[in-house]
Amino acid sequence: MPAGDRRIGIFLFDRFEELDAIGPYEVFGAWCAHAPEDGWSVATMSDGGAEVRGAKGLVVRPHVAVEDAPDLDVLVYPGGQGTRPLLADETHLEWVRSMRERVPLLASVCTGSLVLAAAGLLAGRPATTHWASLDHLASLDPSIDVRRDVRFVDDGDTVTSAGVSSGIDMALHLVARLQSTERAREVRHVIQYDPEPPV
Amino acid sequence: MPAGDRRIGIFLFDRFEELDAIGPYEVFGAWCAHAPEDGWSVATMSDGGAEVRGAKGLVVRPHVAVEDAPDLDVLVYPGGQGTRPLLADETHLEWVRSMRERVPLLASVCTGSLVLAAAGLLAGRPATTHWASLDHLASLDPSIDVRRDVRFVDDGDTVTSAGVSSGIDMALHLVARLQSTERAREVRHVIQYDPEPPV
Repeated sequence: MPAGDRRIGIFLFDRFEELDAIGPYEVFGAWCAHAPEDGWSVATMSDGGAEVRGAKGLVVRPHVAVEDAPDLDVLVYPGGQGTRPLLADETHLEWVRSMRERVPLLASVCTGSLVLAAAGLLAGRPATTHWASLDHLASLDPSIDVRRDVRFVDDGDTVTSAGVSSGIDMALHLVARLQSTERAREVRHVIQYDPEPPV
Repeated sequence: MPAGDRRIGIFLFDRFEELDAIGPYEVFGAWCAHAPEDGWSVATMSDGGAEVRGAKGLVVRPHVAVEDAPDLDVLVYPGGQGTRPLLADETHLEWVRSMRERVPLLASVCTGSLVLAAAGLLAGRPATTHWASLDHLASLDPSIDVRRDVRFVDDGDTVTSAGVSSGIDMALHLVARLQSTERAREVRHVIQYDPEPPV
C-alpha cells in the first residue's frame, strides 16, 4: 500500500462493477497525485489479495490482501453482480461488521449498499443504491430510509451512492468533506469532469 | 477475447490513466451485457498481453496481446503519463499507423490523441485532448485544427475526446453512432449516468 498517513481502501471482489470502483479510484488517485501534501493514499484490496474479474470482465490484481491491509480511514465498497452471493456469506458479512468497528467511514457505490444492509449496518438509517435495486435494499432491512432520486446519501460515518457512475460524484463529495471544497474542485478540474451526456 | 461479430479493443500500457480506459470499458461493457443481440464485444489488450500499471497505480491484466488480437472494429486509445515515452517510440508509432490501416474507427481519450498526432494520423484534421495538453497537441502537428472546450470531436474514422472523464461521453456517443440513440440512452440508464458534480 502506498505511503500516506491517511488511507482509502477500495474492496474488490469477483464481478465487482468496474466503474463503481474505478470512478472513485480515479478521483482519489488524482487527489493523491495532485496534492500529496494532504497525506492521503488509495489502494485496492481483495480477500487474500487474489486477482479479481469484474462484472464486465476486467481483470485486476489488487494491491493488498484485506488480511494485510493497514488501518483505513475510508473503505469503499463497490457494487456489481458479485454482491449477490456475498449477501448470504456470513463470514464475509462478519468481516464487513468488523470493518465498521475499525474504519471511521464506509462508502458504498451502487449495490454495495445491499451488502452493508445485509450486514445490519444500515438499520434505521437513510441510504440509497442503484435505481433497479431500491426495492431490494428496502426488502433486506425495512427499517432503512431508502432514498430515491439522489446521487448519494451522506449519513456521517456511512455514505451510500446510487448506481455505477454516481460513485464519481460521491468521491468528489468525500474529497470536499475530508479536505476542502477547493481541493475537490481542483480534482474535478484535473479529471475534466464537466459531463455532457450526449444522449 | 469474448465472442461477438464486432469488436472493440481498449489498448492499455504502463501509466495509462485509469478512468480514460475504464469509463469507455464500462459503457461498452454495459452495452454488450444489456444487448448481446447487437453482437458487440469489448476487451483490453497490451503489448505482449503484459500486465500493466495505471498512472494512479491500478494493476490490470489485459485480456489479449495486441499481437494475437482479432480484427477490431474500434480501437480505444486512452491517455495518461504513459503516453509521453510512446510519443518518441517509433516502433510503437508504426504499430499505431498499422492499426489505422486495419481498424475502421480509432477513438482516443485525453492525451491518447497526442500519440495519434505523433503517428501523423491527425494531420489537417480537427481533434481535441485534455485541457492541459491542448498546446502540446498543436505543437506536435501544427496542421491539426485543435478544438478547445468540447467533450469530443467526431471526425469520421477518428474520434478524439477531452480529458479523463470525457471518455464516458465519447463512448455513449459511439454507442449511438454504431447502434442507435435509443440504445445509448438505455446504456446511460443502466450505468445511471445522470451526473451531478457536487462541487
